[in-house]
Amino acid sequence: MAKIGIVGGTGYTGVELLRLLANHPKAEVAVITSRAEAGRPVSDIYPNLRGHIDLAFTEPDAQQLKACDLVFFATPNGTAMKMVPELLASGTRVIDLAADFRIKDIAVWEQWYGMAHACPDLVAEAIYGMPELNREVIQAAQLVANPGCYPTAVTLGFLPLIEAGLASLDNLVADCKSGVSGAGRGASVGMLMGETGESFKAYGVPGHRHLPEISQNLSVIKREPVDLTFVPHLLPMIRGIHATLYANVDGDVDLQSLYEARFENERFVDVLPAGSHPETRSVRGVNTCRIAIHRPQNKNIVVVLSVIDNLVKGAAGQAVQNMNLMLGFDEADGLREVALLP
Amino acid sequence: MAKIGIVGGTGYTGVELLRLLANHPKAEVAVITSRAEAGRPVSDIYPNLRGHIDLAFTEPDAQQLKACDLVFFATPNGTAMKMVPELLASGTRVIDLAADFRIKDIAVWEQWYGMAHACPDLVAEAIYGMPELNREVIQAAQLVANPGCYPTAVTLGFLPLIEAGLASLDNLVADCKSGVSGAGRGASVGMLMGETGESFKAYGVPGHRHLPEISQNLSVIKREPVDLTFVPHLLPMIRGIHATLYANVDGDVDLQSLYEARFENERFVDVLPAGSHPETRSVRGVNTCRIAIHRPQNKNIVVVLSVIDNLVKGAAGQAVQNMNLMLGFDEADGLREVALLP
Amino acid sequence: MAKIGIVGGTGYTGVELLRLLANHPKAEVAVITSRAEAGRPVSDIYPNLRGHIDLAFTEPDAQQLKACDLVFFATPNGTAMKMVPELLASGTRVIDLAADFRIKDIAVWEQWYGMAHACPDLVAEAIYGMPELNREVIQAAQLVANPGCYPTAVTLGFLPLIEAGLASLDNLVADCKSGVSGAGRGASVGMLMGETGESFKAYGVPGHRHLPEISQNLSVIKREPVDLTFVPHLLPMIRGIHATLYANVDGDVDLQSLYEARFENERFVDVLPAGSHPETRSVRGVNTCRIAIHRPQNKNIVVVLSVIDNLVKGAAGQAVQNMNLMLGFDEADGLREVALLP
Amino acid sequence: MAKIGIVGGTGYTGVELLRLLANHPKAEVAVITSRAEAGRPVSDIYPNLRGHIDLAFTEPDAQQLKACDLVFFATPNGTAMKMVPELLASGTRVIDLAADFRIKDIAVWEQWYGMAHACPDLVAEAIYGMPELNREVIQAAQLVANPGCYPTAVTLGFLPLIEAGLASLDNLVADCKSGVSGAGRGASVGMLMGETGESFKAYGVPGHRHLPEISQNLSVIKREPVDLTFVPHLLPMIRGIHATLYANVDGDVDLQSLYEARFENERFVDVLPAGSHPETRSVRGVNTCRIAIHRPQNKNIVVVLSVIDNLVKGAAGQAVQNMNLMLGFDEADGLREVALLP
Repeated sequence: MAKIGIVGGTGYTGVELLRLLANHPKAEVAVITSRAEAGRPVSDIYPNLRGHIDLAFTEPDAQQLKACDLVFFATPNGTAMKMVPELLASGTRVIDLAADFRIKDIAVWEQWYGMAHACPDLVAEAIYGMPELNREVIQAAQLVANPGCYPTAVTLGFLPLIEAGLASLDNLVADCKSGVSGAGRGASVGMLMGETGESFKAYGVPGHRHLPEISQNLSVIKREPVDLTFVPHLLPMIRGIHATLYANVDGDVDLQSLYEARFENERFVDVLPAGSHPETRSVRGVNTCRIAIHRPQNKNIVVVLSVIDNLVKGAAGQAVQNMNLMLGFDEADGLREVALLP
Repeated sequence: MAKIGIVGGTGYTGVELLRLLANHPKAEVAVITSRAEAGRPVSDIYPNLRGHIDLAFTEPDAQQLKACDLVFFATPNGTAMKMVPELLASGTRVIDLAADFRIKDIAVWEQWYGMAHACPDLVAEAIYGMPELNREVIQAAQLVANPGCYPTAVTLGFLPLIEAGLASLDNLVADCKSGVSGAGRGASVGMLMGETGESFKAYGVPGHRHLPEISQNLSVIKREPVDLTFVPHLLPMIRGIHATLYANVDGDVDLQSLYEARFENERFVDVLPAGSHPETRSVRGVNTCRIAIHRPQNKNIVVVLSVIDNLVKGAAGQAVQNMNLMLGFDEADGLREVALLP
Repeated sequence: MAKIGIVGGTGYTGVELLRLLANHPKAEVAVITSRAEAGRPVSDIYPNLRGHIDLAFTEPDAQQLKACDLVFFATPNGTAMKMVPELLASGTRVIDLAADFRIKDIAVWEQWYGMAHACPDLVAEAIYGMPELNREVIQAAQLVANPGCYPTAVTLGFLPLIEAGLASLDNLVADCKSGVSGAGRGASVGMLMGETGESFKAYGVPGHRHLPEISQNLSVIKREPVDLTFVPHLLPMIRGIHATLYANVDGDVDLQSLYEARFENERFVDVLPAGSHPETRSVRGVNTCRIAIHRPQNKNIVVVLSVIDNLVKGAAGQAVQNMNLMLGFDEADGLREVALLP
Repeated sequence: MAKIGIVGGTGYTGVELLRLLANHPKAEVAVITSRAEAGRPVSDIYPNLRGHIDLAFTEPDAQQLKACDLVFFATPNGTAMKMVPELLASGTRVIDLAADFRIKDIAVWEQWYGMAHACPDLVAEAIYGMPELNREVIQAAQLVANPGCYPTAVTLGFLPLIEAGLASLDNLVADCKSGVSGAGRGASVGMLMGETGESFKAYGVPGHRHLPEISQNLSVIKREPVDLTFVPHLLPMIRGIHATLYANVDGDVDLQSLYEARFENERFVDVLPAGSHPETRSVRGVNTCRIAIHRPQNKNIVVVLSVIDNLVKGAAGQAVQNMNLMLGFDEADGLREVALLP
């Protein structure tokens, strides 16, 4: 069994990593750290783990983490970059679920995240952990930047269109909706049930940190700068992202076949039959992205619908998928559950 | 007190009319019909009306309805058109909350609604009941077609942009999200809480009946044909519509001032301060449309956020506003409540 | 118009007071205080009040408050008791929506609320503001302790049974369920939507502060000590309390008539027809308590179902009802809205 | 691999069986029937099963079902009893998830279920499938009556108290709350999200079909007639049952130890540490029942809190547990997932 460490395990991505790893056939969580909860059993905070994970949180300890084959960082932005260099130096592989290593342009990163980067050179080395784009280099990576939730849903949804050069890049729109778990487990008035229940709103319209990440992804795919309009919204529910994507496409192309061909060998991207409307609940708890493509009234605007569970394919699940690739396991190990519906 | 009739009062728009009219200073519900529930007290089905409305449902009766000053139809599509001619002939004014008189092009209506129209000549006479567009003609109208919920949110949101000739009409997108009450109170598997709770999806992407209504509205404003891409989605909540609107706008225009000026004298349209993100709960139970305008990163795509309560400004509230205009009351009579938040 | 002050207006009971007072025919909010938000327009935090309340929060100022006819305290427990003596001395009447003046036994209060009481003598003078128990003395009161939310639902539900001496007092059980707004608007992990959505739990089973308040109420009614088992639960919704009450009743009594007779002249208590099951939504946003009485299988256990909106009859609405009594207005002024359903 | 049949697979218990069996190491669904959906792929109705179950619904066919090792009936009450005799005669084992074989007293069953029983003799033979009560006889059973959801939560919660003879049987109260999925997937107005969302109510207080089942269970445990008061409520959420149980217990007993000892070897009953309040989400999607015991203020009323997922331990999960026992598999096969939290 591979020995796994998790730094910062008290948030929603932390508990989700534990849920997925609890039944993983080849990996075992050896250490999970939390300064605030050190000494407390994990199952005390997360009773769903009773009987599955018999660990207590510990203070972060470099020696313990170095003894792991791979360490996940489920920490706030800016934490991993301070600890990762030492771990990599000792040969431990790292997957960061925060944003520290996602943006290649350091100046852009520092602008959006409001701090100086502690190890810019490692940013250059880090592999962006989206297997559908980067499978081979992930397999050999020492450091993987796990993608953001919105960027995962949007990038997979636009990928075949952009790759095939079909979309006009002038008017890409990503109208995205997320459940509240995307905001994490920190205490805040804005995320109280009294504030978010039975209501819906957009947020961050002037600018959201996932915008530069999405732009970077599309630019890498297109091999030229790609910009888009990205509007996130907050759903009165817990899990799930729905990206509704708009692009101008000229001419008479069989988009259904294009998408099916592109994702034919991807085990975690499911192109639905023509005419479908994916529901977020169809991926609740699982690592799948389900996609449908529409061309309403046969006009030039193509509408792509892309759903993921923000905590799984948008965070912990994709991280386990990356771990499987990095450690040479079957890519689906620990990720074979069926979505919980209803 | 004006005598009011309601035909088909068992659905959500029916109960909402009763809620608003219960405290109206100048109008009184004299008759409310329902074939299925004839004889049953209204408050038996809707206990919130206990102590407020002391009426029982009755079989529809032409004489009783003709004795009313004004009759609301809160019936399924295709019902009002069969009864309205007789009522109008007797001098009773009519507001239809369904779609029978909304679309001027009869062929278009028949295509989208799947039936032959029973009185095409009255469609020509009917006034589209959006006071922000048609206040003066509504005041004199005998027959008002009350707007659909999505068309209300979208039309008010685009109105100043289109009117001012600022938006390029090539790429208008209306990405809309509605609570489940928009689907009415009919039994259906798809609207069960077990099917709609904790999930989100688009629906009707290939085509939705509100598309021709929105296009007609924008074309009337622009005085030339306007098309758009309209994608409705279903929210896991009961009340509220959020329209996220995208348009290409060239040049450096002060959109905030444009919107504030356009709606300055409108009591039911509230333009929020620059930078705002309206929440649907801020209009829960009230007749207000709240709007915010954004131009992310100062690029060409303008984003308008428009929220209404689909049962109030999107249905019964706008109908009462129209009634107030038609009967010479203060436009806000019966519509002065504060939204229920939280 | 009576001049009204509100101390601590940023919480849910504060905004609810503003909502109800905005349309009150005889009272007007003159000052609303908040140290944290001083200077900020009320409608900035609560956009539902835009166009209805044109006030900004101010620092608490004794002179301004003394100039009011009546002041509501919508503050955390322990705040009102420090400011009330000065206000009363100047002739301003006070309604405290917190718990400072609810419990007559100071030792009991200090034990459950964990602090020393600042003005025990005023506790003796204060009137417990439940009009169905204390209408006449409320009319003459200078200081009213507004009841807690659970105590309101439970006391009204048990009232006729206890008053008539029908219930055995050995086994009273109050199994209560509340929406999350009862916990207020403070930031806390436990009340995040991610923590409370789609889940249900009991809390405070070993002891909850509303237990001594309910016991005191029942003891006052019975004129001897009454104890009960009280178990509160948290509902995954925003507004509403449902109390399910169990009592042993011997003999063949017509409980339906008993309840109807007891509340016949109460405008805010509605006894439903035999066989009913009240829904919390039937009182959403309104000051009504709806009650149904059952005796399953004609056995000795009577089941009373009692629902209120915790923010209205359980807080701000009952406070306005008390204000109406204290200032000689019609008891229902400002409280005539119809519940928002659906 | 054992060959498994499912009769009536389109409801929520049907899809839940498919979800759990999809990853079962020793059982495989060979046939799934539905008259209404015959010919349609299962994953067409339940997209969460895409990639996991490659079956289509078929017309019920006796030969195909007889070829199975075990057949689950996930049908409405009254269906299984017509088909089971033939299957048993051919040696196929049967688990009925409906109520046809749960009540031993045929007259009682016929009264509550409103129909004549088609095979009363089989009722006598059938084993009530609660492994914590009947493990050994289930292992040898040909026909298992899978327990109802409420009866599972209530029976497990009361079990140690009744078994130990500690509870006074005069005043047992089970105040139960269930998510909407307990009502199944049939179209009905009452279960629309517009009717059940953001609201809470009791239902069936005069009498609910699970009352005789619970009474029978407690009577079997006690070996004498046991009656109780059972009040079910409907929660505005999808999955989960919370039973709050009240019993009179005299004397000074260590209830915590009693419960821990009773369930020490039960893999699907988890007694929480003293002072806990189990949340329904802690068992979402899994076969565990979590229980906490309280004795508020050390008085005579004991409060037991018992939570299950109504579709898993309350239906399909317990059915798979029974199947594992009947076919000689490990009792936890297919039931090792971690609850989905948040």
